[in-house]
Amino acid sequence: MYYIGVDIGGTGIQAGVVDNQGKILFRTECKTVVKKGFEGILDDIKIMIDKLLEENNLNMKEIKSIGFGVPGFINKKGLVTCVNLKWDGESFENELKRRFPNVEIHGENDATVAALGESKFGSMKGADVGVLYTLGTGVGGGIVINQKVFSGAHGLGSEIGHQVIGENYFDCNCGNNGCVETFCSATAIIKYSQKLIQEGRKSRILDLAEGDLEKINAKMVFDAYRENDIVAIEVITRFKSYLAKTFANTINTLDPEIISIGGGVSKASDIILDGIEDLVRKYVLYKKEDIAKIVCATLGSDAGIIGAAFL
Amino acid sequence: MYYIGVDIGGTGIQAGVVDNQGKILFRTECKTVVKKGFEGILDDIKIMIDKLLEENNLNMKEIKSIGFGVPGFINKKGLVTCVNLKWDGESFENELKRRFPNVEIHGENDATVAALGESKFGSMKGADVGVLYTLGTGVGGGIVINQKVFSGAHGLGSEIGHQVIGENYFDCNCGNNGCVETFCSATAIIKYSQKLIQEGRKSRILDLAEGDLEKINAKMVFDAYRENDIVAIEVITRFKSYLAKTFANTINTLDPEIISIGGGVSKASDIILDGIEDLVRKYVLYKKEDIAKIVCATLGSDAGIIGAAFL
Repeated sequence: MYYIGVDIGGTGIQAGVVDNQGKILFRTECKTVVKKGFEGILDDIKIMIDKLLEENNLNMKEIKSIGFGVPGFINKKGLVTCVNLKWDGESFENELKRRFPNVEIHGENDATVAALGESKFGSMKGADVGVLYTLGTGVGGGIVINQKVFSGAHGLGSEIGHQVIGENYFDCNCGNNGCVETFCSATAIIKYSQKLIQEGRKSRILDLAEGDLEKINAKMVFDAYRENDIVAIEVITRFKSYLAKTFANTINTLDPEIISIGGGVSKASDIILDGIEDLVRKYVLYKKEDIAKIVCATLGSDAGIIGAAFL
Repeated sequence: MYYIGVDIGGTGIQAGVVDNQGKILFRTECKTVVKKGFEGILDDIKIMIDKLLEENNLNMKEIKSIGFGVPGFINKKGLVTCVNLKWDGESFENELKRRFPNVEIHGENDATVAALGESKFGSMKGADVGVLYTLGTGVGGGIVINQKVFSGAHGLGSEIGHQVIGENYFDCNCGNNGCVETFCSATAIIKYSQKLIQEGRKSRILDLAEGDLEKINAKMVFDAYRENDIVAIEVITRFKSYLAKTFANTINTLDPEIISIGGGVSKASDIILDGIEDLVRKYVLYKKEDIAKIVCATLGSDAGIIGAAFL
């Protein structure tokens, strides 16, 4: 038997046929056409999966289950809400069952799905308690307890990017002030660089962005950091300080064996991991005890497909 | 068979014989004489328990287990650290087994123990996921997952009073700035009242403290609040605002069925619970969904004995 994992993102949808060892045997992708609406996107997924099976001489009878990762929240009634896709309480479970009538259907938040992938086959393999932070445009999170994904009593949990951990000079998209997402995302890194440069600071970052503030991305800031640019060092030092506070909160609360860092920002893992344990230890309550290992995710963008397959 | 629960506090030790329905049949207590040191206090407990059994015609053979709640941390090696008792990595498990050789011994952090008591017989009964905040001199916490106490991979978890949730005008005893404990404890309420009065504000609180700033306690602040004292309203409004942020962090992370409030401050439950759900809902990510019920603990100080008995 095989499993299908579908990773629904804000711009693209990836799908794969996965074996029981977590290996992606066949894969495909398509664009997320938001304006087609909820049912239109589900139709695209149906066509994509049928074609994937057909092209690889597979039959739906050989598929044990199809799992979906979504960039939002599925409640216990099977209704999905994804702000970026303009889905607001859509009938996710029912509409998928209608399109795929003879196979098990599962769905979860995308970061939770990635955490499951990392837990079964990647950086958190074997850990009873593990927490994944995905640092990208926003900050997502997945919690694994007893080697199972954990999202609480109503499915609202593991939104650890929206923990309030301080006070910031701008509000989060969620309406609160001080969310992890406003300190530790790619967006946070870009915004703080722009702020310092707008305040008149000279920086290599602006050269890398060809003089255009709006073109700055997180990679440029890390690249400038490698060239010892003072502004980049200030931005990354601030980012790492808040990341350490965030991880300490996670340790003081959930005390995982492993904290794993995924998402686009984690490509600069050498810079992020350098000295992070000492920084985190400064903020935890019991400073002399063993604390979580802090590592980078290993499955990359495949975690979404693999994790979804094993929901 | 019966169970014994022992609640070791900073000033007193309470012990009780508990039946399998969570009823305390017989109880006793003694002072915590810190200067006697670790072994001296354990000797006192041994004498107290032997006497408790003898006076009630019970035999140690009728006792299934003895559980201990401690105001600190017991690691996976059975070593205990309690700053207030000046215990620093003492051999808790071994020394207790030596004193009580023919009975099961268990130990846990006191707030975690109280959470277990509330989960089995009190305010969190039947909830798969529950979180207890004990608001007293400090802020302790206990997490219940799958109806079992949860303290993470190394036993460091559930220290939710030391989540960083903002920036405060004084540091926490733990060395960090912005811990829940510095916003939501009795100490925090007292300190902020003193600060406002020292800044020249007139308040009924000072009358209740007979003009002596040092005599202010949390009860006086709640009493002045009931008399519509402006300073007390400001202090309690700030306290409730941070409490709501804290509970929202807990919902965004663990999404419990129930959040229960215990500890001395919870005696003002009418004031604390009034409007708290609306405040919390302001800060959670998914504002339209069902969220945790927020209630007050029901076992009071008995939660420590009952929870310890059922470790």
